[in-house]
Amino acid sequence: MKVFIVHAHPERRSLNGALTDIAVETLSGAGHEVRVSDLYAMRWKSTVDAADFGPVASDPLDVVRDSGRAHESGALAADVRAEQEKLRWADTVILQFPLWWYTMPAILKGWVDRVFTHGFGYGVGEHSDTRYGDRFGEGALQGRRAMLSLTVGGPESHYSDRGINGPIDDLLYPIQHGVLYHPGMAVLPPFVLYRAGRLSAEAFADAAGRWRERLLSLEETEPVPYRAQNAGDYEIPAVRLRAGLEAPGRSGFGLHIAG
Amino acid sequence: MKVFIVHAHPERRSLNGALTDIAVETLSGAGHEVRVSDLYAMRWKSTVDAADFGPVASDPLDVVRDSGRAHESGALAADVRAEQEKLRWADTVILQFPLWWYTMPAILKGWVDRVFTHGFGYGVGEHSDTRYGDRFGEGALQGRRAMLSLTVGGPESHYSDRGINGPIDDLLYPIQHGVLYHPGMAVLPPFVLYRAGRLSAEAFADAAGRWRERLLSLEETEPVPYRAQNAGDYEIPAVRLRAGLEAPGRSGFGLHIAG
Repeated sequence: MKVFIVHAHPERRSLNGALTDIAVETLSGAGHEVRVSDLYAMRWKSTVDAADFGPVASDPLDVVRDSGRAHESGALAADVRAEQEKLRWADTVILQFPLWWYTMPAILKGWVDRVFTHGFGYGVGEHSDTRYGDRFGEGALQGRRAMLSLTVGGPESHYSDRGINGPIDDLLYPIQHGVLYHPGMAVLPPFVLYRAGRLSAEAFADAAGRWRERLLSLEETEPVPYRAQNAGDYEIPAVRLRAGLEAPGRSGFGLHIAG
Repeated sequence: MKVFIVHAHPERRSLNGALTDIAVETLSGAGHEVRVSDLYAMRWKSTVDAADFGPVASDPLDVVRDSGRAHESGALAADVRAEQEKLRWADTVILQFPLWWYTMPAILKGWVDRVFTHGFGYGVGEHSDTRYGDRFGEGALQGRRAMLSLTVGGPESHYSDRGINGPIDDLLYPIQHGVLYHPGMAVLPPFVLYRAGRLSAEAFADAAGRWRERLLSLEETEPVPYRAQNAGDYEIPAVRLRAGLEAPGRSGFGLHIAG
C-alpha cells in the first residue's frame, strides 16, 4: 500500500502522536510506503483566502469559482498542490486527530477547506437536471480508501445510541460521507479511542495492539457500504433516497448506508 | 438586547457579509447594542497551541489541563480573553458563516477551539459518579441565546429528510447542541439560505426580508427544546437518555429534543 497519514495535534508527544508513530512503524515494517503530513509541524495555514488562488483570485473573491480556476490553471498555492499530490499518490488515507467539539480540530478542517478545491474535492463531472456531479462514490479520489483514527475525551456511553452527544457514527458522518466519500474514496470503519485523557499503561498497550491489528488488516477491511449517488438509489437532481429503499430501522444519516 | 455576531467569511462583499450588514443595521435600528467579530478582518489565529496558554503551558503540552489553568489564572492569550469577554457581555450570540464541507469554516472552528476553553466552554462544575459537569443547559454561558445563520451552496432537497447530505438539523446538531447548548446557551432555530451561489436579486430581497423578520423577533422566538443533562432525563454518569422518554419517531440526535 501507499499510505498517506494526515496528523493533526499540537503536541507530538501525545496519544495522537503515539498512534501516528505506531502507524508509521507498523506499516513501514510490513513493507508499505508511508507519507505523513504533520499539520502543526508544517505550520499549516488553516484559512481559505485569496492567497490560495494566486493570480486567478478575483476581486471580490469568489471561493468556489476561484478555487476551480486556480486548480485548473495550476495557480493554487504550493502547499495546497503538494497535499493534492500526496492524495493522488496514495491508495490509502488516514486522518489522525483528537475529537474537539465533536469534529476535527480547526487545523485539519483547514486542510480540508483548502485542499479539497472545486474541480478536485467537489464540482467534478456534469451538473445538470439528470446528473449532479461525480460524487459520493465517484470523483477525483475514486479507487482510494480512507479511514479516521481519533481520540475522544469522554467515555463511549456518551457516544452510544442513546448517549447525549449522539451516536459516534452520526457525528462522523459529515466527515466520513461528506468529506471522504464525496470525492470518491471508500471509507473504512473508524478507529476510536475513548477516555483518551485517562488511559492507564495497560489500556494504552491494549489500544496500541488493537490499532496495529487494524493497520495490518487494512487491505481486507470492508468499507462502510454508503450508497453511490449515481447508481439508481437517488432521485436526481433532488438527490433524495428513493422511497422504500431504506433498511429496517434506519433513518437520518443511516438511510445512506445500504443493507 | 446585547447581540454578539461572529462573522466568518473571507470576502466582506459576499452574501455572508450582506447578511451581517443587515443584522447590524436591523438590530441597531431597533435600539439594540451590537458587537461584531469579523474573524478574517481580525486575522484570527485558528490553531490551538502552547502560545494560547502563556506561561502556564506545560511541556509536553496538555491542551485540556493547560487551557483550564490558563483560564483560571488569567494567562490566556489576549485575543481569546477578548472573545470570552464579548460572550459574557452578550445576551444573544449569532454565528454567521458559509457551510463548508458540512460544517463551519476552519477559522470559525478555530474560534470555538480556542475560546471555549476548559473552565469556560467545558469542564465546568462537579464531575463525579453522580454528576457530569454543568453542561447541556447549564454552564458559563447559561442565560444567553444563540443562533446560527448560514449559507449553503446546494438546494434544500439535498438537506431534507431523505437528502444525501442528511437532514440539516442533524448536520447542525454538533454545533447547536455540542458547541452552543453545551456551555448553557439556549439555541434558536437556524436561519439557512440554500443555493447561495445562485441567488437572483429577487431571491436575495426575499431572503433579506425573512432575515430581518427573524432578527426583529429574536426575543419572542422559542428555542429548540434540547433536554437538560441534569434535570433527570439522563442516566448519570453514562449520560444516556433514560428508556421510554423519546418522542415518537425520534432517534439518533433527535432523541435529545423533548416533546
